Amino acid sequence: MKTYNDTRLLHGGDYNPEQWLAHPEILKKDFELMDKAHVNTVTVGIFSWSTLEPEEGVYHFEWLDKVFEAMHKRNGRVILATPSGGRPQWLSEKYPEVNRTNILGQKHHHGFRHNHCYTSPIYRKKVQQINRQLAERYGNHPALLMWHISNEYSGECYCDFCAEKWRDWVKDKYQTLDAVNDAWWMTFWSNSYSSWSQVVPPSPLGEHKVHGMDLDWKRFVTDQTIDFFLNEIEPIREITPNLPVTTNFMAEGHDQQDFIPLEGLDYSRFAEVIDIVSWDSYPDWHNPYEPLHLTAMKSAYIHDQYRSLKKQPFLVMESTPSYVNWHAYNKAKKPGMHILSGMQQLAHGSDSTLYFQWRQSLGNSEKFHGAVVGHDNSEKNRVFQEVATYGKRLDTLAAIKGTPKEAKVAILFDWESNWALKRGGGFGRPTRRYIQTLQENYRFFWERDIAVDILTPNQDFSDYALVIAPMLYLMQEDTMKELSEYVKKGGILIGSYFTGMVNENDQLHLGEWPQTLQTIFGLLPQELETLYPGEHNQILYQGKSYQTKDYCGIVQETTGKVIATYSQDFYVNTPALVENRLGQGTAYYLAARTDLDFLEVFYQPMIEKLALQQEIVKDTQPKVSIQSRTDGQHNYYFLMNFSEERQQLELLQPLLDLETNQTLTGLLTFAPYEVKILKKEN
Amino acid sequence: MKTYNDTRLLHGGDYNPEQWLAHPEILKKDFELMDKAHVNTVTVGIFSWSTLEPEEGVYHFEWLDKVFEAMHKRNGRVILATPSGGRPQWLSEKYPEVNRTNILGQKHHHGFRHNHCYTSPIYRKKVQQINRQLAERYGNHPALLMWHISNEYSGECYCDFCAEKWRDWVKDKYQTLDAVNDAWWMTFWSNSYSSWSQVVPPSPLGEHKVHGMDLDWKRFVTDQTIDFFLNEIEPIREITPNLPVTTNFMAEGHDQQDFIPLEGLDYSRFAEVIDIVSWDSYPDWHNPYEPLHLTAMKSAYIHDQYRSLKKQPFLVMESTPSYVNWHAYNKAKKPGMHILSGMQQLAHGSDSTLYFQWRQSLGNSEKFHGAVVGHDNSEKNRVFQEVATYGKRLDTLAAIKGTPKEAKVAILFDWESNWALKRGGGFGRPTRRYIQTLQENYRFFWERDIAVDILTPNQDFSDYALVIAPMLYLMQEDTMKELSEYVKKGGILIGSYFTGMVNENDQLHLGEWPQTLQTIFGLLPQELETLYPGEHNQILYQGKSYQTKDYCGIVQETTGKVIATYSQDFYVNTPALVENRLGQGTAYYLAARTDLDFLEVFYQPMIEKLALQQEIVKDTQPKVSIQSRTDGQHNYYFLMNFSEERQQLELLQPLLDLETNQTLTGLLTFAPYEVKILKKEN
Amino acid sequence: MKTYNDTRLLHGGDYNPEQWLAHPEILKKDFELMDKAHVNTVTVGIFSWSTLEPEEGVYHFEWLDKVFEAMHKRNGRVILATPSGGRPQWLSEKYPEVNRTNILGQKHHHGFRHNHCYTSPIYRKKVQQINRQLAERYGNHPALLMWHISNEYSGECYCDFCAEKWRDWVKDKYQTLDAVNDAWWMTFWSNSYSSWSQVVPPSPLGEHKVHGMDLDWKRFVTDQTIDFFLNEIEPIREITPNLPVTTNFMAEGHDQQDFIPLEGLDYSRFAEVIDIVSWDSYPDWHNPYEPLHLTAMKSAYIHDQYRSLKKQPFLVMESTPSYVNWHAYNKAKKPGMHILSGMQQLAHGSDSTLYFQWRQSLGNSEKFHGAVVGHDNSEKNRVFQEVATYGKRLDTLAAIKGTPKEAKVAILFDWESNWALKRGGGFGRPTRRYIQTLQENYRFFWERDIAVDILTPNQDFSDYALVIAPMLYLMQEDTMKELSEYVKKGGILIGSYFTGMVNENDQLHLGEWPQTLQTIFGLLPQELETLYPGEHNQILYQGKSYQTKDYCGIVQETTGKVIATYSQDFYVNTPALVENRLGQGTAYYLAARTDLDFLEVFYQPMIEKLALQQEIVKDTQPKVSIQSRTDGQHNYYFLMNFSEERQQLELLQPLLDLETNQTLTGLLTFAPYEVKILKKEN
Repeated sequence: MKTYNDTRLLHGGDYNPEQWLAHPEILKKDFELMDKAHVNTVTVGIFSWSTLEPEEGVYHFEWLDKVFEAMHKRNGRVILATPSGGRPQWLSEKYPEVNRTNILGQKHHHGFRHNHCYTSPIYRKKVQQINRQLAERYGNHPALLMWHISNEYSGECYCDFCAEKWRDWVKDKYQTLDAVNDAWWMTFWSNSYSSWSQVVPPSPLGEHKVHGMDLDWKRFVTDQTIDFFLNEIEPIREITPNLPVTTNFMAEGHDQQDFIPLEGLDYSRFAEVIDIVSWDSYPDWHNPYEPLHLTAMKSAYIHDQYRSLKKQPFLVMESTPSYVNWHAYNKAKKPGMHILSGMQQLAHGSDSTLYFQWRQSLGNSEKFHGAVVGHDNSEKNRVFQEVATYGKRLDTLAAIKGTPKEAKVAILFDWESNWALKRGGGFGRPTRRYIQTLQENYRFFWERDIAVDILTPNQDFSDYALVIAPMLYLMQEDTMKELSEYVKKGGILIGSYFTGMVNENDQLHLGEWPQTLQTIFGLLPQELETLYPGEHNQILYQGKSYQTKDYCGIVQETTGKVIATYSQDFYVNTPALVENRLGQGTAYYLAARTDLDFLEVFYQPMIEKLALQQEIVKDTQPKVSIQSRTDGQHNYYFLMNFSEERQQLELLQPLLDLETNQTLTGLLTFAPYEVKILKKEN
Repeated sequence: MKTYNDTRLLHGGDYNPEQWLAHPEILKKDFELMDKAHVNTVTVGIFSWSTLEPEEGVYHFEWLDKVFEAMHKRNGRVILATPSGGRPQWLSEKYPEVNRTNILGQKHHHGFRHNHCYTSPIYRKKVQQINRQLAERYGNHPALLMWHISNEYSGECYCDFCAEKWRDWVKDKYQTLDAVNDAWWMTFWSNSYSSWSQVVPPSPLGEHKVHGMDLDWKRFVTDQTIDFFLNEIEPIREITPNLPVTTNFMAEGHDQQDFIPLEGLDYSRFAEVIDIVSWDSYPDWHNPYEPLHLTAMKSAYIHDQYRSLKKQPFLVMESTPSYVNWHAYNKAKKPGMHILSGMQQLAHGSDSTLYFQWRQSLGNSEKFHGAVVGHDNSEKNRVFQEVATYGKRLDTLAAIKGTPKEAKVAILFDWESNWALKRGGGFGRPTRRYIQTLQENYRFFWERDIAVDILTPNQDFSDYALVIAPMLYLMQEDTMKELSEYVKKGGILIGSYFTGMVNENDQLHLGEWPQTLQTIFGLLPQELETLYPGEHNQILYQGKSYQTKDYCGIVQETTGKVIATYSQDFYVNTPALVENRLGQGTAYYLAARTDLDFLEVFYQPMIEKLALQQEIVKDTQPKVSIQSRTDGQHNYYFLMNFSEERQQLELLQPLLDLETNQTLTGLLTFAPYEVKILKKEN
Repeated sequence: MKTYNDTRLLHGGDYNPEQWLAHPEILKKDFELMDKAHVNTVTVGIFSWSTLEPEEGVYHFEWLDKVFEAMHKRNGRVILATPSGGRPQWLSEKYPEVNRTNILGQKHHHGFRHNHCYTSPIYRKKVQQINRQLAERYGNHPALLMWHISNEYSGECYCDFCAEKWRDWVKDKYQTLDAVNDAWWMTFWSNSYSSWSQVVPPSPLGEHKVHGMDLDWKRFVTDQTIDFFLNEIEPIREITPNLPVTTNFMAEGHDQQDFIPLEGLDYSRFAEVIDIVSWDSYPDWHNPYEPLHLTAMKSAYIHDQYRSLKKQPFLVMESTPSYVNWHAYNKAKKPGMHILSGMQQLAHGSDSTLYFQWRQSLGNSEKFHGAVVGHDNSEKNRVFQEVATYGKRLDTLAAIKGTPKEAKVAILFDWESNWALKRGGGFGRPTRRYIQTLQENYRFFWERDIAVDILTPNQDFSDYALVIAPMLYLMQEDTMKELSEYVKKGGILIGSYFTGMVNENDQLHLGEWPQTLQTIFGLLPQELETLYPGEHNQILYQGKSYQTKDYCGIVQETTGKVIATYSQDFYVNTPALVENRLGQGTAYYLAARTDLDFLEVFYQPMIEKLALQQEIVKDTQPKVSIQSRTDGQHNYYFLMNFSEERQQLELLQPLLDLETNQTLTGLLTFAPYEVKILKKEN
C-alpha cells in the first residue's frame, strides 16, 4: 500500500486557476485567502487540459508551475489531477472517435464533460501523453502529494470500439457460444446466438431485457472503466512509482430522497487498483423529507462503505462549504452545519475535508455551486468564516490522521446483487430497494453509536461478531461456504427474503434452494409474497405485533426454530423469523421486510449479548452520533449533535477534550450542531 | 367453420422443451408431472425457431417429434405454433430488412420478440418455409389438435417496404389524390397532396395529427397484420385443410387500473380469418384499486367480447397459475383464486384453461413469470397442487365442452370509433374512456347475472331484446339504417353523447345530425359540455337526483319525450335523457355520463319488462356471479363467489351439482372464492 | 408609424374558403352569415399556399379575388396573410432543406405546420415569390386593410444552414474566440474554443449547459426569426409601402395553470419591426384551478404587456367564440362569457375582436376548435347568437377605436432575464417563476382598477410614478443608470432578491454588487436562502407578521432604512425590506418573496400617496374590473363583472352609458359576466 507523506488532516480542495489567468490579482489573492482559511492542500488540473495543451502537442505549464511553487512556499501540498474528464475541443474535433456514442447509437460531439469513449485507442494514447507530461514535470516536486486520476468516472459508451471490446470480453469469459447461450438462457424467445458477430451491446433497439446479458454488461462497464484507468496510470506508475493514486468516487440519489453509493460501477473492484479511496460527499442537509439525523445516518453509511472498501482511512475529495447547484432546491448549510458535517467525515475515517471548490466561477453551468471564496471575492462572508474556523480546528486534530476505525458488526453489500435486483420483472419493481433496506438495518446501529463495516461478500468477514446480509440475492458458491464457515465458528448471521435466490448468471437454482443455505438457515423458502404499498401483514414476536411491508417470504422450517409468525392472510401462523443453530453460531432468516420497530427488538438482545454497546456515555441519543477512531493507544471520540435542539449526554468516565485540552466529566451539553472531540487513553 | 377433434376441456399450455434439451431428466419429469396435473394439451413451438432451424435451411425436429409421441402416448394433444413471433439471430443478421423500423425511422437490430417487419418479402418467404416444414412433418400426426399462428400479433413498422405498402393501400382505397385530400381534409394547414410520392406513414417527424390519416393508418395496420397472417397460413391451409387455426389475442391496461381488449388491432376483422378465437387472459386479481368482483367483471367483459367475435366457444390460450412478471407489483393468486378464475373462463364460453407456462425458465426476462412447474421442479408446492386439483375438476365438466352461451342483451363496440375517439383534440382528452364506459354499462348486467354479447356494429344485432350503444362516435350509414330497422321492429336502443358524431373519415356531418339518427332518437344535439374531474351536474329523474361526470350533452328534443333533465348550470332544465318511440320500439338517448346509481334506475325497469332476469336464484348478489352455457337440452350454471367472504344464495328450484352428482336445493353457502357448477334439464 | 384606414372596431377573423372550394353553397352562405354576425373583417391566406400555388410557379387566385370582392361589396375589409406558416407538400418534397432539423439533428419531412427552416435560402426565396404575387395582385385593392405576416412564428432549427448562421452571429458579436471564451466562461470544464469551426448550436448531444451560450442562442433565435420576417416583407414594403404589417404573437401555459406571454421570442425586439402589435388570446376561462377573476387578471396582464410593446392600441388577431381543442379539457365559454372576454380585450387597448375561426373544419386536427359557424352550419346556435350580439354592440362602441390607455405604474419585464433565470442550476429550479411573480404584483393593481404598463428595461420609464422591477436578474449598465436617474428625479422603484445579479453574459459580478445598485437600494446582498415548498419564514412589518415563500434574501443595509425584518431562522432580525431615499425618490428592496397579503400592505400607502386610485366608483371590487381608454376629451370606462355572482358598484359621478346613451348614477348592479361601458367628458 502506497500512502502519502503528510502528517496533517488535509484541508482545501479543487482549485481552478486556469479560469483566472487573465486576472493576476485574483491569483494573488487566492493564496492570501488560503492562508486565512487554514487551507493546506489544493487539487489542480481536473479540467485544465485545454489550458495545459491548447493545441495538439503545444504545452503550457507556467501557470501550473506557479501553483506548485506558491503551495510549496507556504508548506502546502498539491493533489495533481489528470485531465481526462474534460478533453479540449480540438481533440473532439480532430478525432471524433473520442466522443461517446449513446445507447441509441447516436454519436455525441464535443460538449459537457465525462463523456469520452473509454475504449478509443486515440483517446487512450492522448491521455497517456498528457499524463506523461504532467508526471515528468511535477513527479519530483516536493509539493506533490498524490495523483487524482481523471474525475468521477462513470457512464457507458456504445460505439463500435466498445462493441468489439464487449464481444471480446464475452468471448474471453465464456469461450463458446453454447456457454453464452446457456448462461444468458438464450433459447428463451429463440434468441440463441449462432455466430459471435451477433453478440452486440444491449440496446432498446435490439436486445435489452436479457437479464444475464444486462448483468454481464454492467460487469463489462466496470472492467472497461478500470481498464481505461489502468491505461491512464501507466506513465504515472512508471515515473512516480512511490506516489499514491486515487480517483474520486460518487454517491447518488438526492432528489429522490435517497442517498446511496453509486450503483453503476462496482467500486469494490475499482478499489483494488487504487491506493487510496476518496469520494465526493454531498449529503442533502436540511431537506424537507427527513429529520437531520437521518440525513446524517445515510451520509455515515456511505462514509463507512467507502472506508470499508480498503478498511483504511479515506479522503473526502469534494464537498461543499455551502450549497450545490444541481438539486431541485439548493439550500445552503445553516450556520454550524459545515463544521458538523466536516467533523462527521473525520469521525468515519476521512483524513481530509476537501471542497469543490475553492473559488466560484463567474459563469457557465456551475456558477451557483458553493465555494470557499464566493463571487464577492471576500473573506467577510459567513461561508468563508466558517471554513476558516473549521480549518483552524483541524489543526488541533492532527493526531487522528491515519488512525483506523474498528467495528465488530459487518453489513454485506454486493454490487452484482444490486444490479440483478434492479433489472427485469417480478415482485415489486419500485420496492426492491436493496441499499435502502441495508440502510434501515444500519440505522439501528448508527443510532446506538455502534461501529459498522460495510463489506462485499468477497471481503473477509470471518472475524466479525455479527454479519448482516439481507437480500443477498445473487450468491456465489464460495460465499455460501464462507457464510457457513462463519456461522459454524460462532458467528451470527442475518439473511432474508431474496437471499441466495440466483446464481452468478442471475439464474434460478433448479430444484431446492442450495443445500448450503438450507443448512445455514434451517428452512426451505416456498413463496415470496409481494405486498402493494399500503398493504401489510403482521409478525407476532415475543407476544407483540409488528407490521410487515413490501415482501413476506413464506418458508418452511427444517432444522430451524420458528421464533416469529405471520398473523394473517393465507400464510397465517407460518414462520416469519427462523433461528437456526449451526456449529457454534446462529443464523437468522427474517422472511419479511419490517419497519425499524421490529429491527430494534430483534437486534437489541444481540448487541447486549455481544457487548457491542458504546462505552463512554450512559444513554445514547439517536440524534447525537458518537463515532471513534483509534491508534491503539488512544481512542478519539466524535460526539456530534445532528439536531436543531440542545442535547445532553452523561459521560461514564472523564475524557480529554482534544481541542481545549480540558478534562470533561459528567453531563455534557451540546448546542445545536455542536461537535466535541474527546480522547481516551487505552 | 373448422373445429378440432377432442371432447375434453383443454388443460395445459405453453411448453418450451427447447429450453431444456441439455436436461433429458427434466424432459422426462415434465410428462410425469403433466399426468399428475391432469394436463391433456401442450402448445409448442412458439419461440422454437432457432432450435428448429439453427442454421438457414438446416432443420432439427427430433426433439419435437418426441413431444408429439409423448403426448400421443398419453392420449394428449398438441397445439402447434408457427415460430414467427421470435426469429433466429441468423435471420436478423443475414437479412436486416426483417427487423422492424420504428416511427422515428430507427432501424432495430435483433432482439426481444414480436418485432419483425410484417411486409418484408424475405421474412414472409422464410416464415412460409418453416411453416411448410412443420405442416409437412406434423400435419397428419394424430396428436395435432390445431395451429397456433405466431404469437400475440401487434405493433407497427415504418420501413420503406411498409411505407410503399401504405401508399398502395391509400391509392387502392381512394383512387385519386383529390379523394385522399377530401377524406383527410388536407387543405387544412395547406397540406394537400400533389403527388402520390408525398403519401408516407404518419410520424412525429412529419405528419402526425391528421385525424383521417391516423384512422386509416390504424386500419392499414390491421390489414397488413392480417395479410401477414394470411401469408403464414398459406402452406398450412394447403397441407392441413381440415385443421383449425387460431392466434392468441390480447388484452391490455393492468397497471393503469384498466383491463380492456387490445385497442391496436381490429379483432373483429381478424376474427373473420381464423377458425377459433383464443386469447391470453391476465386479470390483475387482488389488486389494491378495486374490490375483487370488479376485477372479475372486467375479466368477464373481455371473455364475452372475444366469445362474441364469432359467437362460438373460444379458448383461453394463456393464463397464469400464479403471478405475472410484468406488473409494477406482481402478486400471486391466493389459494382458491386459481380455480375460481379458471372456472370463470369456462363460464363465459371458454373450452380451455391453458397456461403460460408449463415450466418456469431459469433465466432471462420472464424467469419470474408464474408456471405450473416452478423453479423447485416439484409437485409439492401450492401452485402445482391447485393446478392439479383444477385439472381433476375439469375432467368432470367435459359435458360443457362446445356448448354456446345465450344472451338477449347486446353492447355495441367499434374499434374504429375507439381509434377515432382516442386521437386528436377536443373535449376531455383523459376522459373519453369509451371502453371503460361500456364496462360501466356491462357491470349493471353482470352484477345481476344477465348474459351480454358484445358485438361490433357490423354484426347482426336484430334479434336482441336490448342494444346498448353509447358513444358510437364513428357511424357508417349502414349502421344507422340497421339501428333504425332494429328499433322499428320492436328493439330497445341506448345511445348517448358522442353517438354518430362523425362519418367513416372521422369527419363531422355538415349541417344537422344525420336525419336517420334524429328519427331514431327524436332530438337534435346542440352542444357537448366537457366537465373537469370533480365537476358535476345533476340529472333529475323520477323525482331523484343523480350526479353526472365528464360529459353533459345539451340537446333539443323533437319527437322524443324528455324523461330526465339537468338541475343546474346554463342548460338547467334541458333534457338529459330522451325517450323516443319509433315503430314498435324505443330509443333512449342518455345525454350525459353518469355513475352506476343512475344506470341502475334506468335499466332496472327494462330488464323487468323484458324479463331478462336470471331464474335460478331468489336474489342475485353482485359479488356472486352466475353465468350459464347451454346445449339446448341442459343448462350449465356456474355460481362463482368473487369475494373474500362467505356468501349465500337461495335456489328457486332443485339443481344437480355437476361435479358431485348430488341434487342441491334451498340455501346454498359459498366459501370465499368457491365455485359450484349446477345443471338443469330443459 | 403606419396605421390602417378604418374607423370601426374590427370584428371577424380567420377565414379559410380554400377548404370549401368544392362547396359553392357554403361560400355563399358564409357572407350571408357574416352579415348576420356583424362581421366586418376577414383574415385570409394563412394556410392557403397549396391552394394559391398548387404546383411550383402555377398560381390560382380566382377564389381569393372573390373573397376580396365580396368583402368590398359589403364594406368589409381583408387582412391578407402571407402563407409561409404552412408550405405545400411539393415544396418540402422538392427542396428538403426547407424542412426543420430538430435539436437532435433529426431532419423532419413534410407535415404539421410552423416548422420550416428560417435560414434556408430556397425557402426565403420561395416565400418572397409568393408574397410578391400577393402584393402585386391585392396591394391596391380597396378592401385590403393590412398584412398578416406568416402565423405564430416560433421554434428553432438546427440544420447546417442555421449552424453556419449561428457561427456567423457569434463571430459578428464577439469578433475573437478569446472574447467568446471569456463571455461564456469556457475554461470551465476545459471547453475553450480553439477554432471557429467548433462553434455549433447547443445540443443534448454536445454542449447544452453553457449558460452564456444558451442565452446567446435564444437571442440568435429571436434575431433569425426577425431576419426571416424581414425577408418576408421585402416585396411587401416595396409594393405596398403604406400598408401596415403585423404578425400574431402568442401566449402560453394553460394546462400548467399559467397564462403568460410567450417566453421563446423576445417580442420587444420583434415589436420594433412591425407596425401594429397583434396577438392570439386564449385564456382558460372556467378552469377548475382558480376563480374566474384570476383568469381575467392573467389575461389582462398579457393584454397590457402587448399593448405596452408599442404603447399603442393593438389587435386581438385570434380568439375563440367558444372553446379550443388543445387543452386537456376543452370547456366552452358559458353564456355571457364571450361578450365579457371580448370587451376585456377592448378595455385593455385592443381595436379588434377577431376569431380563430370563422367556420369549423369538418376534418383534421382542429376540427373541434370553436368557430363562429359550427358544423351545424346554422345561425341558430348559442355561439353564433352571442357572436352576433357582440358584433352589434361593437358597432355602438366605434368611438373608442384608436384611443390609447394611460398608466402611471410600470412593471418591468425582461425576456433576457427570464431566459437566464430559467436556465441552469442553483436556487429552486421549480420556483424561479419570474413572470408569475410579476403577475402577483400586477394583481394588486388590477384588483384596484389601477392601470399598469408592462415595459422592458429598454423602454422609457422615466415618467411613471411607480416602477416595479422585482427579479430583474440580468441587468445592463445602462439600465442601472436609468433606474438611478429615475429614482433621483423622484421616482419610486421596487427591486428584490435576484435583482441585478448578473451581467449581460449571465455572469456574476466579481466582488460587491454593482455600486450603482448599492446606491439605489442602500444595501449589500449577502446570501439568497432558498426555501422548499411548504417552508416559510415570517416578515415582521408594522407590527404584523407575513409569510415568506421560495426565497429569502439576506442583506446588510448601508444607507437604507430597515422597515421590515425576518422573524426566525439564522437570519432572524435581519432586513427583509429596506427603504432608501435617493435624491427626490425612494427605492425599496423587498428581499423575500411574499404572498399577496404583504404586497397589499406594502403598496396600499403608495397608491394613496401617489393618488393612483381610480376615481369613478366608491369602493372597488376585486372581481369587477374597471379599465379605461381615453381620447383626451373623453374617458371610456369598461366595468366588467368577472364573477358568477351579482355585484354592485356605487358611481361617484353621473356617467353616460355608451351603448344606451342613458346617464347612470348611484348604485350600479351587474349581473354575472355583465359589462357596462361608460363615458366621461374630461
